[in-house]
Amino acid sequence: MSILVVGSVAFDSIRTPHGNVDRCLGGAATHFALAASFFTQVRVIGVVGEDFTSENEAVFHARNIDTQGIERAAGNSFHWTGEYRENLNEAQTLSTDLNVFESFQPKIPEAYRDSEFLFLANIDPVLQQRVHKQMPNVKMVCGDTMNYWITGHGENLAHVLRDLDALLINDGEAKLLAQEPNLVRAAERIMEMGPKTLIVKHGEYGSTAFFGEKSFATPVKNQFFRAPAMPLAEIIDPTGAGDSFAGGFFGYLASQPAVTPAVFKRAMFYGGVMGSFAVERFGTERVQQLTREEIDQRFARFRELSHLDGN
Amino acid sequence: MSILVVGSVAFDSIRTPHGNVDRCLGGAATHFALAASFFTQVRVIGVVGEDFTSENEAVFHARNIDTQGIERAAGNSFHWTGEYRENLNEAQTLSTDLNVFESFQPKIPEAYRDSEFLFLANIDPVLQQRVHKQMPNVKMVCGDTMNYWITGHGENLAHVLRDLDALLINDGEAKLLAQEPNLVRAAERIMEMGPKTLIVKHGEYGSTAFFGEKSFATPVKNQFFRAPAMPLAEIIDPTGAGDSFAGGFFGYLASQPAVTPAVFKRAMFYGGVMGSFAVERFGTERVQQLTREEIDQRFARFRELSHLDGN
Repeated sequence: MSILVVGSVAFDSIRTPHGNVDRCLGGAATHFALAASFFTQVRVIGVVGEDFTSENEAVFHARNIDTQGIERAAGNSFHWTGEYRENLNEAQTLSTDLNVFESFQPKIPEAYRDSEFLFLANIDPVLQQRVHKQMPNVKMVCGDTMNYWITGHGENLAHVLRDLDALLINDGEAKLLAQEPNLVRAAERIMEMGPKTLIVKHGEYGSTAFFGEKSFATPVKNQFFRAPAMPLAEIIDPTGAGDSFAGGFFGYLASQPAVTPAVFKRAMFYGGVMGSFAVERFGTERVQQLTREEIDQRFARFRELSHLDGN
Repeated sequence: MSILVVGSVAFDSIRTPHGNVDRCLGGAATHFALAASFFTQVRVIGVVGEDFTSENEAVFHARNIDTQGIERAAGNSFHWTGEYRENLNEAQTLSTDLNVFESFQPKIPEAYRDSEFLFLANIDPVLQQRVHKQMPNVKMVCGDTMNYWITGHGENLAHVLRDLDALLINDGEAKLLAQEPNLVRAAERIMEMGPKTLIVKHGEYGSTAFFGEKSFATPVKNQFFRAPAMPLAEIIDPTGAGDSFAGGFFGYLASQPAVTPAVFKRAMFYGGVMGSFAVERFGTERVQQLTREEIDQRFARFRELSHLDGN
């Protein structure tokens, strides 16, 4: 079934201990869409400027991603410049040029209306909310956010959280949002804000799902599920790892006939798998070149490295 | 089969956000021995002062731990004072009074000579080395260390590392020892120093085993194995969690007829299980009161929360 994602389509300039890239294709919606495209049909809502080339667009089309919801506006595309030092878990933002995103009014093409899965990637919660309101009948809606929106736009974010099936954020964001240093208690507080399930991404340590009473796929007898990450000798560029996780997770969910506990767990593993590929090259480079066979091989590897019995 | 452990038997004064305790029974060998005692016979080499009471000793005997290798010396027992603030992963040491440990010369009772498993808990590598030299025929030897020995006593530590079947340390210690921020590359360097297997403890995120070419239990097709930790709403006192992990891990290994890959993986899970109990109360309180049934119930829980399929 189709996923509609709203979020940034952008250019990133990135410095890591492994080198620099200038203005490579990036943005949360881009990373999400590419990862999810290996599992299901993806449609993108976003805005780009006059600097967005047909070559950039071809990256989406090569993965059969529908781009008719990507609006062209006068001016430049969103441009983020960031740096990672020794601690590859945390980016230092050097500059954020919103450009065409400053006045973006998301509109949903008619052909997108039958999308059953909605992902609200990390953008202004006002935009997330506007898109969700236009898609009241989706089967499942998940979202992401970040410190900037949590601290400065809490009230707008609260509206978005209220209706989420699952929120996907990292440890620091969860603790900040809940104002609580213990992750289990933070998860409880966040689920009181609305999300039926909370997925916390731990970077190189994997991810944990916390299931609330109304979770759509509570595994019997369990409040949590933990999926591993794979230890990697080379992390070239962590940018987009979290969005790729979300794309793998939600893409796999959307591809299945029903969201059972077993499907949910496998989706967490696929999230980790897609995140582990994303960091192997700068920007979208690695995921662009990926095959479904490589994905399933790594899925098997994730299983082996975390399961007591063979398989 | 019997495990011999050498390490500190001490008193700890601990402050955490949940309260304070003064001079509770602690020390790496104590926490290790109590955890391992649920799986196999444990024998302790250490030294205590005149302040060590028969009540303290009874804690060991209640778990059938052999204490004839715990020497009594004039003076006071080792006393550590530490504090945990919001970040429960890291203790601030307020004071370390070595006392009777300053002049400790470990001697191995005749009755301990047939021990087949040796654990060198976190103490001066000179003492670790001295004990290992007196036990040249053990089947397997594992050890722990910490930043203090890595930075200030590197040469002595190098002698200990050379002969280890497995080293068990945490993320920060591994990166410091290898002088390398990437954990996979750090593990490779550390295994070049001697340990055939490296187990890195990630606190609330579980643990990872890195297998070298000479590892005693390399799972087929895998360089790593990851065991989970259980998300806990209340961490009362993290002191001894790492030692309890080591006790659960090594105790289970020693209890099995052979160290196969399957046994090794289960041992990692038992390590996580014992660590998760240790932090539920101050000092040794929780582990003292534990039953094997509770341990196996939690083991089943660890399996459920990390495995794709039901049991």
